[in-house]
Amino acid sequence: MLLKSLCCVKGNSIESDYKSIIMEPQLPPPVNNLVTPLHTDLYQLTMAYGYWKTNRHNEDSVFELFFRKSPFKGTYTIFCGIDEVLKFVSNFRFTAEDIAYLKTIPSMAHCEPEFFEYLSNLDCSEVKIESIPMGSVVFPRVPLVIVSGPIVIAQLLETTLLNLINFPSLVATNASRMVIAARGQKNDIKVYGKIPKCVEFGLRRAQGPDGAFSASKYCMVGGFDSIANVQAGKLLNLPVGGTHAHSFVMSFNALDDLKNSPNVVKKGNEMIDLVKLSLKYREELDYMDTNEGELAAFLAYAIAFPNTFLCLIDTYDTLESGIKNFIAVALALIDCGYKPIGVRLDSGDLGALSLDCHEVFHGIADKYNLDIFRQMDVVASSDINEALLLEMKEKGHGITMFGIGTNLVTCQAQPALGGVFKLTELNGIPRIKLSADIAKVLLPGRKRAFRFFDEKYRPFMDYLMEAKDEVPMAGKEVCVFDPFTKNKGRRFVPTLVKEILQTVWDGKRGVTVAQPTLMEARETCIKAIQSLDPDMVKAKDPKKYDVCVSNTLYTDLHALWESSKHE
Amino acid sequence: MLLKSLCCVKGNSIESDYKSIIMEPQLPPPVNNLVTPLHTDLYQLTMAYGYWKTNRHNEDSVFELFFRKSPFKGTYTIFCGIDEVLKFVSNFRFTAEDIAYLKTIPSMAHCEPEFFEYLSNLDCSEVKIESIPMGSVVFPRVPLVIVSGPIVIAQLLETTLLNLINFPSLVATNASRMVIAARGQKNDIKVYGKIPKCVEFGLRRAQGPDGAFSASKYCMVGGFDSIANVQAGKLLNLPVGGTHAHSFVMSFNALDDLKNSPNVVKKGNEMIDLVKLSLKYREELDYMDTNEGELAAFLAYAIAFPNTFLCLIDTYDTLESGIKNFIAVALALIDCGYKPIGVRLDSGDLGALSLDCHEVFHGIADKYNLDIFRQMDVVASSDINEALLLEMKEKGHGITMFGIGTNLVTCQAQPALGGVFKLTELNGIPRIKLSADIAKVLLPGRKRAFRFFDEKYRPFMDYLMEAKDEVPMAGKEVCVFDPFTKNKGRRFVPTLVKEILQTVWDGKRGVTVAQPTLMEARETCIKAIQSLDPDMVKAKDPKKYDVCVSNTLYTDLHALWESSKHE
Repeated sequence: MLLKSLCCVKGNSIESDYKSIIMEPQLPPPVNNLVTPLHTDLYQLTMAYGYWKTNRHNEDSVFELFFRKSPFKGTYTIFCGIDEVLKFVSNFRFTAEDIAYLKTIPSMAHCEPEFFEYLSNLDCSEVKIESIPMGSVVFPRVPLVIVSGPIVIAQLLETTLLNLINFPSLVATNASRMVIAARGQKNDIKVYGKIPKCVEFGLRRAQGPDGAFSASKYCMVGGFDSIANVQAGKLLNLPVGGTHAHSFVMSFNALDDLKNSPNVVKKGNEMIDLVKLSLKYREELDYMDTNEGELAAFLAYAIAFPNTFLCLIDTYDTLESGIKNFIAVALALIDCGYKPIGVRLDSGDLGALSLDCHEVFHGIADKYNLDIFRQMDVVASSDINEALLLEMKEKGHGITMFGIGTNLVTCQAQPALGGVFKLTELNGIPRIKLSADIAKVLLPGRKRAFRFFDEKYRPFMDYLMEAKDEVPMAGKEVCVFDPFTKNKGRRFVPTLVKEILQTVWDGKRGVTVAQPTLMEARETCIKAIQSLDPDMVKAKDPKKYDVCVSNTLYTDLHALWESSKHE
Repeated sequence: MLLKSLCCVKGNSIESDYKSIIMEPQLPPPVNNLVTPLHTDLYQLTMAYGYWKTNRHNEDSVFELFFRKSPFKGTYTIFCGIDEVLKFVSNFRFTAEDIAYLKTIPSMAHCEPEFFEYLSNLDCSEVKIESIPMGSVVFPRVPLVIVSGPIVIAQLLETTLLNLINFPSLVATNASRMVIAARGQKNDIKVYGKIPKCVEFGLRRAQGPDGAFSASKYCMVGGFDSIANVQAGKLLNLPVGGTHAHSFVMSFNALDDLKNSPNVVKKGNEMIDLVKLSLKYREELDYMDTNEGELAAFLAYAIAFPNTFLCLIDTYDTLESGIKNFIAVALALIDCGYKPIGVRLDSGDLGALSLDCHEVFHGIADKYNLDIFRQMDVVASSDINEALLLEMKEKGHGITMFGIGTNLVTCQAQPALGGVFKLTELNGIPRIKLSADIAKVLLPGRKRAFRFFDEKYRPFMDYLMEAKDEVPMAGKEVCVFDPFTKNKGRRFVPTLVKEILQTVWDGKRGVTVAQPTLMEARETCIKAIQSLDPDMVKAKDPKKYDVCVSNTLYTDLHALWESSKHE
């Protein structure tokens, strides 16, 4: 199962993880109504006219989508977003209204009417798209998506594809790093017997409504466990969670605020006065100096949600008021047969406070012989980022669930992934873009990409070659070259070889493989992360991952490089 | 005009900048289809049930939306997003499908059916919203939006309002700072006779489709001049621009690629062979060693857009190839009666290269006696951020137009604004939230906010008071208090006083004031920035802006603070 996330070449047979069932070729439109062919930069349309006007619009092009550097100074990136790309491509069509608008743009006003006629008939039926499956780990320079077809339409897809892939991949990678920081690469960290969970809390600070939605969606692929965003929960069938805020607590002044409330919970067929019972425990434990408004709020919350009782305990004083009020109500609920869940901390030294909470809970567990207090969740949620997670892991903490907002959804440490979309071949001729910066020199031509695995079945190298090159085989020696330094190549025998890209859209047929569900992509991601060399997922100074090329590609790159310099 | 961006109190009369015309109370839905009542955190809905279940849902609440710190270490923030908030509020209604979904959420499964019935009838007809106008400069702790009404519905608006205001205000502020860095607080920087323009280029790197759309929209309020995002151009009627990319240049190998192209442009009634004419200039100038594919691409672009000829000149070599090919074609176009616009740089030392370009252009202007070459635009567009703008301003450059992408739209320097939404009053009783961090202590109670202007009509202080306090008047002494330090108050006479907040939504009537258009909000912003003390808009260590409170508010805050501590 571990090795099934990519198309697999073993001997001469090719396995694939994509489901073989062909979906209906016509997909529903993208979830966001803004994603139409106008969701692009104007220069794509002026270029389209440039190609059309000079009769070059049908030249056969190949574009590659890739990035040059993994985000967050890391080695890996999680690939996401192809699901919405396919919906976009499947529905690509300028409306009459779009065309009417384009004619009003001053720089387009002189374009010939026949061009707009041509545009209005354009769709993706002549385009072919190859892609790596969603949730895969990917590395710099390796093509993640290859678009081929008439240059006009391939070029028109650039900006939208980048927009639909850059942020989803960035946020999934951010989520993955946070998950690793919270519970280890192989879920090997336990806190009070539990593997800590990660919950997304970022809607309010996200960049626009669907900065929020995209983050909620793709952080799940990166390994998050649930989200607070209800819209994303509804549209994507994801687990949502949430309890109450400070304002709920602040809205209660005293127990008198419950005067119009039922104040009872069911115990079997009986109705029990929860207020009375909680006050009994409060007195018994000598918790009389807690904030009474807060106690009233917790009671109200327990009356509403006796089955899922979890309280935010830091509105006034976490240890002097919040946890005590929680315990008084929790004991009453337990009496009535319910299982309180725990507490949430939203300020202060989260690590230290979480340990204090468990200590108090264990005292109660001893006193009342109630093991449930040894299993209480402690949720923490104030300005958590990867660095803080690592710091808390180092120091020790008692947090069983992390609520992560701003720093997850806005990817504070690096808010953009620099994915690019480059022309690599035209009419069968490889194209190159030179640059003073070697990192920006393009690997020319149409390529195939493979992943090599070592004897522990860990991926250790991606390999790019030309179509005419021999397909590498498991158990057979290969010779690979670093693309940009003069070298004689390296030889080795991979234990396993998988092809990275597979056709996902073929204009004539539409969508060619069923896309994984979000939860399947999450599985792909989690397994891929677990399969990596642990040194490659380290937060700091991780080990690099090799991306090499075939002898032919190496030779052609350098020949083209030389000739372009002197052109 | 300068002083008309806020509601103005002069003597006893109150002026307002909001248009007095009442718009139709029912607005169209938010531009983004995701923005519905489910665009929120689940805990808002569980709290709603908590209030409802304990019969407190109709308690009369006041919530304030504000932030605690301006972004980017600056003094000011540009307020945006209330336009979409009003559309959201105006259309607030759970659909039957929404309700059906909510019932499936495990933690909501036990809620009483009557609650869902109640939810499905909920709208904003009992809510009142006050707001500062879009495009205003705003400062920490001052309420930007006040929502009052039954606690359930006011609370349900929290997350959505924050999402709709935080990022728009952040990106408008970022844009404003970049505009100031590019052309000075008062448009006082000229480059080769032109005030530099700022153009938004960020769609491909933005956080989700409407991270891009929101950025395109609200950067215009901050003072940007145009955008590349066609969808935003269409839906918001904004100026869009764009020419071509490297891939367009790379798609041409040689002049032979123009073999199927018309290759002519109109000169009056004549058709002129532009290729032939350009080659004549190329030879005449001894530009024979330029990249021929690039020349072909520029010719193709000129044939398509003779009226708006602007070329990206760094695909191969900016000074050895790009600018020379541009000049050869530009001279031919000028011969035919067109006015070429200029060049774009997308790599290298943008400042130095831009000066080199002007030098070359001035040489051509001299040689051919063509003043148009003294007015060429030089657009620059590679990884520009505020720091680079400031650095280039310092060193000198020849850039007349900045294309800014990633760092504008993702607000790299600080990708989130920490706006919050806090309960300040319930049933007429002020509420306070204490915190060990004084910056987080809440100013309690329902407030009115005023802005004071000095004798130069520059705003210098915002003043918060209780409803019962005396309204401050221009020319009349006021006594103000710093809210958090023990002080005896300061006395002075403001030259002008304006009220900051105005009712924009009144449940019974709907939208109560016509909202400014985006371009009007942009005017508001530009004028507000120009009216500020220059020391307050400095990029580094700007002067602070004072926010003070009335004697009553000061006294009540401290009394409540003390009593809450001992509660």
